This record gives sequence, C-alpha cells and structure tokens, in this order.
Amino acid sequence: MPIPKHVFDPPFNIIRSSHVVLDVTDLKASRAFYETTVGLHVEDADDSAVYLRGSEEHQHHSMVLRKATTAACNRIGFKVGNEGDIDKAASFFSENGIRYTFAEPPFQGRTLQFTDPFGFRIELYATMEKRPHLLRRYDLYRGCHPQRLDHFNIFAAEVQGTMDFYARLGFRLTEYAEEDGPNGRIAAAWLHRKGNVHDLAITNGKGPRLHHVCYWVPTAMNVLHLCDVMASSGYLKNLERGPGRHGISNAFFLYVRDPDGHRLELYTSDYFTVDHDHEPLRWSLTDPRRQTLWGAPAPRSWFEEGSPFPATEMREAAFEAQVIVAD
Amino acid sequence: MPIPKHVFDPPFNIIRSSHVVLDVTDLKASRAFYETTVGLHVEDADDSAVYLRGSEEHQHHSMVLRKATTAACNRIGFKVGNEGDIDKAASFFSENGIRYTFAEPPFQGRTLQFTDPFGFRIELYATMEKRPHLLRRYDLYRGCHPQRLDHFNIFAAEVQGTMDFYARLGFRLTEYAEEDGPNGRIAAAWLHRKGNVHDLAITNGKGPRLHHVCYWVPTAMNVLHLCDVMASSGYLKNLERGPGRHGISNAFFLYVRDPDGHRLELYTSDYFTVDHDHEPLRWSLTDPRRQTLWGAPAPRSWFEEGSPFPATEMREAAFEAQVIVAD
Amino acid sequence: MPIPKHVFDPPFNIIRSSHVVLDVTDLKASRAFYETTVGLHVEDADDSAVYLRGSEEHQHHSMVLRKATTAACNRIGFKVGNEGDIDKAASFFSENGIRYTFAEPPFQGRTLQFTDPFGFRIELYATMEKRPHLLRRYDLYRGCHPQRLDHFNIFAAEVQGTMDFYARLGFRLTEYAEEDGPNGRIAAAWLHRKGNVHDLAITNGKGPRLHHVCYWVPTAMNVLHLCDVMASSGYLKNLERGPGRHGISNAFFLYVRDPDGHRLELYTSDYFTVDHDHEPLRWSLTDPRRQTLWGAPAPRSWFEEGSPFPATEMREAAFEAQVIVAD
Amino acid sequence: MPIPKHVFDPPFNIIRSSHVVLDVTDLKASRAFYETTVGLHVEDADDSAVYLRGSEEHQHHSMVLRKATTAACNRIGFKVGNEGDIDKAASFFSENGIRYTFAEPPFQGRTLQFTDPFGFRIELYATMEKRPHLLRRYDLYRGCHPQRLDHFNIFAAEVQGTMDFYARLGFRLTEYAEEDGPNGRIAAAWLHRKGNVHDLAITNGKGPRLHHVCYWVPTAMNVLHLCDVMASSGYLKNLERGPGRHGISNAFFLYVRDPDGHRLELYTSDYFTVDHDHEPLRWSLTDPRRQTLWGAPAPRSWFEEGSPFPATEMREAAFEAQVIVAD
Repeated sequence: MPIPKHVFDPPFNIIRSSHVVLDVTDLKASRAFYETTVGLHVEDADDSAVYLRGSEEHQHHSMVLRKATTAACNRIGFKVGNEGDIDKAASFFSENGIRYTFAEPPFQGRTLQFTDPFGFRIELYATMEKRPHLLRRYDLYRGCHPQRLDHFNIFAAEVQGTMDFYARLGFRLTEYAEEDGPNGRIAAAWLHRKGNVHDLAITNGKGPRLHHVCYWVPTAMNVLHLCDVMASSGYLKNLERGPGRHGISNAFFLYVRDPDGHRLELYTSDYFTVDHDHEPLRWSLTDPRRQTLWGAPAPRSWFEEGSPFPATEMREAAFEAQVIVAD
Repeated sequence: MPIPKHVFDPPFNIIRSSHVVLDVTDLKASRAFYETTVGLHVEDADDSAVYLRGSEEHQHHSMVLRKATTAACNRIGFKVGNEGDIDKAASFFSENGIRYTFAEPPFQGRTLQFTDPFGFRIELYATMEKRPHLLRRYDLYRGCHPQRLDHFNIFAAEVQGTMDFYARLGFRLTEYAEEDGPNGRIAAAWLHRKGNVHDLAITNGKGPRLHHVCYWVPTAMNVLHLCDVMASSGYLKNLERGPGRHGISNAFFLYVRDPDGHRLELYTSDYFTVDHDHEPLRWSLTDPRRQTLWGAPAPRSWFEEGSPFPATEMREAAFEAQVIVAD
Repeated sequence: MPIPKHVFDPPFNIIRSSHVVLDVTDLKASRAFYETTVGLHVEDADDSAVYLRGSEEHQHHSMVLRKATTAACNRIGFKVGNEGDIDKAASFFSENGIRYTFAEPPFQGRTLQFTDPFGFRIELYATMEKRPHLLRRYDLYRGCHPQRLDHFNIFAAEVQGTMDFYARLGFRLTEYAEEDGPNGRIAAAWLHRKGNVHDLAITNGKGPRLHHVCYWVPTAMNVLHLCDVMASSGYLKNLERGPGRHGISNAFFLYVRDPDGHRLELYTSDYFTVDHDHEPLRWSLTDPRRQTLWGAPAPRSWFEEGSPFPATEMREAAFEAQVIVAD
Repeated sequence: MPIPKHVFDPPFNIIRSSHVVLDVTDLKASRAFYETTVGLHVEDADDSAVYLRGSEEHQHHSMVLRKATTAACNRIGFKVGNEGDIDKAASFFSENGIRYTFAEPPFQGRTLQFTDPFGFRIELYATMEKRPHLLRRYDLYRGCHPQRLDHFNIFAAEVQGTMDFYARLGFRLTEYAEEDGPNGRIAAAWLHRKGNVHDLAITNGKGPRLHHVCYWVPTAMNVLHLCDVMASSGYLKNLERGPGRHGISNAFFLYVRDPDGHRLELYTSDYFTVDHDHEPLRWSLTDPRRQTLWGAPAPRSWFEEGSPFPATEMREAAFEAQVIVAD
C-alpha cells in the first residue's frame, strides 16, 4: 500500500479529537452507565441531552448523550486551533466539493458541520465553554477514572481512501495493518494530530460507522476495577473484549458496550509520536500479537458491530480482511 | 530481652482481632470520614452509634462509632473460637485476679469484657450477627477499598510485661525492636493469632492508649488514592504519616487521623506466619529502615499522640526508647 | 451433597501446603522459565534438581524441579506442626490401611511419604532448612514477584470422597461448586488449613492428577506484567487462561503452562477464613461468574489437561460436570 | 507578573526535550545506577561514555553519561523539526547576539550548540540514529520501567527573563507559581512544546544549574518499586524526596540522586495541553499543595542543590522565594 507522507502544512489546523455526540434511546439508562459505572463527570443535563467530560478536560463536554428514537453516532467532533481555521476549513471544503453548514450547538462557539466523502459526520470548532479541570478533585473520581477522550475508531468501507483523505488534512500515520505480499491492501490505520498514537483509527468494515470512542484512564488497575464493577452491577453482558494488551499502540485495553450497544474503549499506556521523522509501524494481518499481545482473539461482535451515523448510506467493506475470531 | 516461646495450648482460643469501639464527639463527622472518604461499609446506624465493616468481613461490624462527650478508644475486641472459650477465659481471669463482666452489645452474642493488668479494655466474643461479605459487590467499593480490620497497635508503658501477658494467651511474636547491647530492652513487639504479621502490636509509650487500628487494603494504589481523596476533600491535615514502606512487616502503609484524632492505618502486603517454627525477626532500634524502609522519619505526633481508654489511669513509659523524628 | 463439618481435633496437625516436586524433561528450560520469567528464587541447583522459593518463604524450597524422562507431578508436600505430628500421621495411616514410607529428601528433615486412597502422592514434614526471607531484597525481584506457594489444585475422579478424606484430616471447606437440585453432586471444593481460601482445591476430572500449583503475587499489576513478559520472550503459547477475576475466592488469576505443560497459577486478592463459624460458600455449576466474574470462559485445555503422578493408575471422573468452554 | 502569550510562529521549531549529557566521575558506578537500578536501556558504551534510552524512545539515546573529572550537567538537548530549523536557529542566534557552534556528537546528525543569555548550555539537532523502540520487549524491562525523557527542570537566577526567552522560542506556559499581591514575582514556570505539562521547568535559585532531568514511568507502582529497590541495594541515601503527588502538574513523583548527586525525577500521570486556548494555571507560593498535594514538605537539599554547567559563571537568585522546607 502507499504510505501517506506526513503533511506539515495542512489546509487548516485540526488540534485533536474532541467530543462525540451519541444518540441514545434511554437517556436515563445511558447517563447511569456513563456517570455511575464508567465515571464520567456530568457537567450539564436536561430532558433531551446529558453533557459529560473526563477529569483532565477543561472543555465543557467530550461526550453528549442525545435522547433519540434510534441509537446512532450523531457525529464526532475535532477541535481546531482558532476561528481562522474554521474559515480555512470552509474554503477547503468549498474548493473540494464537500458540503458543510454552520451551527452553534449548546456550549460551543461557531461550529462547522460536514459529511466527509466517505459519509462520516464530523464537526469542527475552535472554542467551547471552559470549566476548571477536575484532576485534583479526587473526591469526585468514580468508576475507572476516565481522564480524557483519546480517540475515535471508525469502520470504513475503503480504508485506503479514507486514510488518504485525513492524511491530506494533516493526520499522521503511526501504525497500520496490511495484507502480506507486494500488493497487500491496508486493513487498518492509526492516525494522530495531538502527538500520541491516534486521534482517529480507521478499520476495514461496513461503513461509515463508529467502531468505538475511547477514553484514556490512568492505569490498568482502573480498567480492572471497571470489569469488577460492571460484573457486580448488571453489566456483565456489556463486557465485550479484554482486558488485554494491544500489540498495536502497546495499550492496555477494555471494550464495553453501553446500553444502546455503542462501544466504549478504556485504554492506557501508549506513547508519544511528535517527531517529524516518526515512522509508521507496520503490522502483518497474520501477526496475532497485533490485536492482542497475549494471544486471546476478539469475539466476532467486535469485528462486525458498530454504531451507524444517522441517515447515511452504508457500503460493504472493499475487501474482506483476514481476522482471528474467538468462536 | 527474653523472647517469649510460642504457646500452642493457651488457656482459651483467641482467633483474631475483631473490632474496635471508638467514642467520637461528632457522630456525623466521623461517619462521613469512615464511610465516604475511607470507604468502610455502614451496616447499621442510629442516633448513638454507627456500625461499619470492610468488604471481606462476614461479621456485622469491625468498627463501632459511639457518640460520646469525650473522644476515647472505648474498647478493642477479639473473637474466640467458640462459646466454650468464653467460659475458659472467665475461669482463667478468675484464677488470675483479672476482673471481668458479661455483656451483650448490640448484634453480638455473649461478650466477656475485661481490663487487662496494664489497663487495656478488651472484649471477647464467639458469635456476632453475620452478613454476606461484600467482596464481589464492587459497585459498593469506595475510598481505599478497606477489606478487613487487620490489627491493633497499643501504647504500653511496659512493653515487656504486656507482651509476656499476651504471649501467655497464645499470641506469637513475629517481629520486635529492641535496644542494642546485652541488656537491651524491648521497645516494640508484633504478635499474631491469625497467621499474618500481627493482630496486636505493642509500642513503648505512655499507656494504656490505642496507637492505631489498622485496616488491610488490596494494593498500594488504593492507599495512594486515599491520599489524593483526603487532600481533595478537606482532610489534608489528617494525613499524618506516609505513604511509605515499613521495614517491619514489609507493609506499605499510611497513617491518617479521624475527626477526633483517632489514628487509622491503611496497610497492605505483609506475609504469613503460621509455621510452628516461625522465628521472630529482631530489629535494632538504631536501624532507620525499621520504621520506614525508604528512610523518611515519622513526625513527632506519631510517637506521642494516641487515644486513651476511658476512665483509665495512665503511666509514663518505663524507659525512653530512641526514635528518629522528623523535626 | 453432604457438607463436611469443620474438624478442630484432626488426627495430626497439617499447617499448610508447602512445596511441589515436579518431574521435568529439560531441567535447563524449566529453570529458565521459573527463574527468569516467573521470577522464583533459585536457592540451590545441581545437575539433577533445582530448588526454588518465593520471596516471603523462609523454607529452603517450595518448588523442586527434578530431571526426569517423563514429565509428571512427582509429589506435593504439606508441612505439619512438629515432629510429633509425623508420628501421629504414621499411626493414623497404619490404622487406616494407608501405606507410607519415611524419607529424607535433600534439605528436609524426616519426611513421611504416602499415597492417599485416591492415588495422590503426598509428603509430610515438620522441618526444612531455613533461609532468610527475601521480602526486603527488592533488588532480587524478577518476573511477577511470586511471594509464596499458596495452594494445589488436583483433578479427582471422585470429588466427594476426596474432599471427605481431607476434611477428616482437618481441612476446612471454604467454597464449593455443585449441581443444582436436591441430589446435586459436588464438582469442585476449596479447602484450607492456613486460614485463607485454600491450601487444596479438588476439581472433578480424570485423576489423580495435579491441575495446577499456585503462587501468590502482590498485585494484579504483577500478573499483567507476566503476561507482557511471556508474550515478549517466546512463551506466548504458554499463556493458557486469563488474566481475569475468579468469582470463586475473588482472586485475580492467570494460568500459564511451563515447558512440560505443568500448569502454574499466579493469583492475588483472596480473603481470610480463620473463624470457627466460617460457612462454606456454595456456587451453582450454572453460574458463569463462578469461573470468571467477567464472563470469559476458560479454554477446553484448562478443563482437560493436567499433570499425572508417576506410576499411578488413572480413573475417569465419576460424572461429567457441566462446564462452559471457550470453543 | 506578566504572562507570556503563546507564540504560534516561533523563529524555529523545537519539537521537544530530547536528551541530557551528564558529566560523571565514576562511569561504572553511574552506569550501574541508571541501568540496573533505574532501568534505562544501555544502547552503546565505551570507556568514556554510556548511551541510554527509555523503552518508548526510537532515538539512540536520551541520556549520555560522560566520564569527567568534575560532575556537571554538560548540556541539555532539544530536538527540532527538521534540518531547516537548525539553520533558522543559527540565523536567529546570530541576529540576537547569541554565540553558537556546530558539532557532530556521536550518533547525532548536525548539532547546533549554544549557551543561552542566562548561561544554560543547550544543543539542538534534527536527526539522530534510530533504534526500534523497546515497548514490547517486556523481557528487557528493569527497575522502574522508564519510558521516555519527559522534561528538564533548571535553576535560574532570573525566572522571569528566562521564561520570556523560551516563550519567544515557542515554549508555552502551562502552570506557574508566583508571590501573592499586585507585584508578585514569578518563582517557577512550567513550559512545553510537545503537548504535555512541560519540556522545561524553570525554578528560582542560584543558576544556571540543572535542577533535575525527569523520566516518565507508566504507573505509580513502578515508582514505589524503585523506592524499594533503592532501599534494598545501597541507595537509601539517594532517595531524596517522595514518593508523593505534586499539586503542580498532578504528577506522582519521586526524586532520587545519582552517584554524583545529579537529580533524577521519576514521574507519571500529567495531562495534555495542546489547545491553543489552554490557559496557564497559577499557584500561590503560599499554597502548600502546590509542591505536594499531600502536604509533606521537601527537604532543604531539594531547594538548594543542583548540577552546575561546566565553566559557567553562577549568579544568586534575583530574590528569595518563600518555600516550605522539611527541617
């Protein structure tokens, strides 16, 4: 596969992944899950939406739960450097035939919403209401002590094209999985803007869909505690995969499903990638340690299920990547 | 100093340290500290008392907070094997001129209360109301996840005599600190019944007083979290000593003070001592790693302050042991 | 099933599980695994045997690797209170038609070796050469910091009978799994002498075989590190099950296989059981949280494979217990 | 104090703190300390120098130990984006009367060495020989598992001026401590380039000197283990401060001294700071939780001792900042 070059002068400056807006069918049940069990902090709530954030986040929210009749990933959000970057983004989208609108979601400043060429619904903003971070409010810590939204992972029908699009926007490749052989196709890509392993991961599969949103937690002990808490409080079936160590990104991980089936990863211990000469790490699709360093395969649901975006046409994956499933 | 021999046929069978009854001057404040911050489970409460326990304890309570006008350690409790052991204890005390009475404290069966020859107020019982343990109720875990009452540490004016008395009752010495030289006096002794490092530690000092009661927690991470929580919730001044590693018992420790100044230790990682041929470990008073393996000395308050027993005559320590103080 | 009563006056006093003697086919490979990867301390070694122990153990060895042509569990060892207990054991075995011999294995005192009525090869001893414990020799810590041999788990063709035999010797039941219904048969039993969840677990299966020997480690972090180390050093295939949380015993566990396939558990966070009125906890065979609180089933090998004892006739399990297998 | 604005178009692009060159008087002793006890990986060594790195670092070295007759901090190194940035730096220094030279230290590409206006000896480079990172070589992990060089902390006689100089080079302020009152002077500043709390901290004191170099470790457990290892292996006196939690940066920390007295921090759990609108956090000099969230003061040595740069004139601090010392 062709590896995209690092782009150091992107058309506009995306700083990092910022927030996710999830459509949920039972707002009370979803809030209980994310607030009491996972341990996110509820910053605001009304009858139609709940706004949550992690302990290190200054921004008003990194997760919005929206009451809806159908569960979906409503959109994912990235923060740009400043207001000028929003205008530059608008120009870029206009020049490239990508439709966008402006909006002012609650607690956010001017927000540009667009659907990328692959159907992913995304919004960009530069300012959001601020709140003091809660790092030193240890008395408020709950659940697994989620600290920040770390990244999104999306199911894309065409990984190569999707990766190339985001690489052009300045996302830099850190790790990738591809088929062996001279014409091996890429099956998954990890790209970042903020200097760690990823802000955005792209996984081969029926898409566009959200595979998962991930929060970073301080240590593996917090992840283990979440397993125990979920098993003790009626969420046993929601423990989907892990805990374990990814070969990719070296992260200690756990995947859980929320009451609507939206997938949440809890994750710790990756590494910095800020160097201009940081080289992407290749994984063969046939290396079992890629998915799980300790060898345990993922369940089939992990490869097949995800959250659709609303009113978006779905396509099957361009090819069927070889995976090792626990059946 | 003469080392007491292990006694394998004591006059009655004490199984382990069981519970502490603390007189507190502000029941609401004390409950908030132990329940919300430390994380003990409140099993029962009324206007005059609160009953708490750790997550692995089947017994109704291991700590009783009693509303009182003066803060004190009301008494400490040990569990005996069965009802017959209470009768054997009564006989032994009668033969040895130790006064005792029978009582039936709430939730406990027949209870023998006595004051030992050194002024310590103690009660023995064989049965207490049972509750299912809470180990797998991870959804209820709070604070530092205290799991069980582990031991008592008492200030005794005469360590040698106090140790000899309890050795005669079957307590086995595991570690001790003494002065160097052929006539070195013992300054502290750690004795057990249940097979770990101690149920009862005896420290040289003005006595009789309770130095501290200790709860065992799963890992050092739980101890660190308690430091963070206390610093975040108005208890900064109540962090007295640690976290650190004791040379003695190898335990990772933290000492905190409750709203009345009663000292609580949180502790993990000691070892088993069930062997008949387990030999006590000697520490020189001049070895700084005894108190803290990492070298940091304890503050003066730790050597001087403790909880008196009510209506008990106090005596100064028989000698002044050399300690290393952080001044 | 009939639950055995706690026996407080056994015919002789077994203190605890002590050591395992494993026949291994490649002494060098086995030593490398247990010393470098797992982190046991090699106390002595020659061309035919290696003697290892955990960091808190005063005794010369808790594991003996013996060079042999066929892999087997040569025998398991329990420590008794004193020399008199060995004589009492001999008398008891004579009266009950159990054959025994005396031996003096290296570094041990007088040792009584017997084969129990179910074919398990066991030795009892009261004294072994002592070594200073290594708890405070943190500079020697390796691998997952194994601290002590905690227990044995054996495959027995007849769980009820085997449990009854050891209960008569003073082992006390702490937890057990049985079939539902009025005539539900027992499928597994956990019994202790030293005051924690178990010294000996008995599992339904073709027997007599050793299912596993378990070492206690300080925290779950040590277990996770062993996973990482094994995955990094050629032992990926030897990671058999876990890490996870047992419902039974509340322990955080990992099962690995040594170069001969002998199964080793690393384990932490169980609880104390010294009370005379400690009541056994029943698990239904159909409760998935019994095996793994977090729901992940064990692989088939875990239910089927074990280490035979040398020259011992094997029998199939008396019945086929229902298990949940990851297939 | 005047707060420097974030500079988004610096004269050249420093990416991050990279490496430290320490002059040591006993190369063998220093290597033993950093390799065996701390756990850095030795990548190369000869009779005059040892090159070390952390497990996530791709670069050949982040620490160079240089055999010397006098202990000193020889220089600290920053990585720039590319070769062009080195030329831009040269131009900037020429225009601003800062003397520099070019050098090619072993394993590094073209390197610009300069002494800043306050006497700090610094080098800039864009390329260094690469090595595969060691994150997944868990079999090589030792000591406290240091993962990357995180930052430098320097003693500056004039904090405000030094901070302003580096702010002009693009370093962004994240936290700072200042005197109370309208004319309160700044006593310490934390500045970053790579998106976490700091690449460079500036502390009021006799300078120019290195206060410490810091490596990031995965969890607090690794820090505690280093305390235990140092106490067990003859480095008890080298444990200077901690473990504890900084209010500033929220980091769990430990300060140790190497055989020459160079100070090393081990540190974990800070937060991301990539936002353009990230606002610096102010600490009052009189807030004790700034230094240590848990209240324990630092020893006097921590405020007074540091590593001089060779052949550099030293000046006393411009003012005496109020500190809380453990005396």
